[in-house]
Amino acid sequence: MKRKITEVSIKLFEKKGFSATSIQDIVDAIGVTKGTFYYYYSSKEQLLMDIHYDYITNLLERQKQIVDNSHLSQREKITEIITLLIMDVTEKGPSARVFFRELRHLSEGNIEKIKEIRKQFYLNVEAVIKAGIEQGEFRKADRPDMIAYGVLGIVNWSYNWYNPEGDVSPSELAKIYANVILKGIEN
Amino acid sequence: MKRKITEVSIKLFEKKGFSATSIQDIVDAIGVTKGTFYYYYSSKEQLLMDIHYDYITNLLERQKQIVDNSHLSQREKITEIITLLIMDVTEKGPSARVFFRELRHLSEGNIEKIKEIRKQFYLNVEAVIKAGIEQGEFRKADRPDMIAYGVLGIVNWSYNWYNPEGDVSPSELAKIYANVILKGIEN
Repeated sequence: MKRKITEVSIKLFEKKGFSATSIQDIVDAIGVTKGTFYYYYSSKEQLLMDIHYDYITNLLERQKQIVDNSHLSQREKITEIITLLIMDVTEKGPSARVFFRELRHLSEGNIEKIKEIRKQFYLNVEAVIKAGIEQGEFRKADRPDMIAYGVLGIVNWSYNWYNPEGDVSPSELAKIYANVILKGIEN
Repeated sequence: MKRKITEVSIKLFEKKGFSATSIQDIVDAIGVTKGTFYYYYSSKEQLLMDIHYDYITNLLERQKQIVDNSHLSQREKITEIITLLIMDVTEKGPSARVFFRELRHLSEGNIEKIKEIRKQFYLNVEAVIKAGIEQGEFRKADRPDMIAYGVLGIVNWSYNWYNPEGDVSPSELAKIYANVILKGIEN
């Protein structure tokens, strides 16, 4: 049931926005009572936090497997992280959109928690770029931190426009972007 | 007064979100009555449309001056468009965030109108990339359309994280991103 609540809420939040979606809307869509909702969540905000937390910790874990893989070059790590993010927007589009749009509706304490985990994800990208520069795979750059944001931007932006059912498959898109970025930063 | 309503609303929408901001909140923040609001706007949605329309038509006009400038190479046009967008997020951060986040709260007809103008902005970027490929400035690419989205992504994403008062100035950031993208697509 908890999973059902989360799934239905993600769809409603995506369509109507967090503020405009009431707990009544959520329980009506599932066909249960508010009592059921409150059995699992103390508030709509707590539910939103759950969605955010699940989304970003899952991504971070999958990223960790990439960056910790010592068989991969830094170039390959960047490609894999790009692929991870494009695939993720493809598979979990509604979650991604709720994640990117509704952060400010969390409580201040929860915003800080989520921002910290997001920051970790970002820092891992930055670390790969810095390692690539040190090892001579990427050319020297004054601001590897800005480049890391650029890598995330090019792929994260796709949640705004990308249609995975269109004529460019997720893996093709990942390849195109990895190619532009790597050519853009390679030595 | 109309301008004042727009300015105050943009700040409130940025902070609280469109749905959670009432007309009462807006008029309270200015110190006028609802009558004043309704003299200028028939609804909150119409006000949001005004904000969206102003934002995107202004950008499109400034982009037109760049793409129509026959003295510029395609490389230079890309650089100028990147600079335009970064400067814009810097100067009009709150408007940019309202623009990117609140589109779905417009009526369907208005969403279509705004999407059409956004599309025009995008198509102009795509046209520059295609021209650059034809003229040999950029290397051949199977999907110039995806690259155009990438260019917009890398810069538009900055509205999420970029602090223009930090240690990287808007013009430096524009230079860094133009550099990565041009190296990424040049012949």
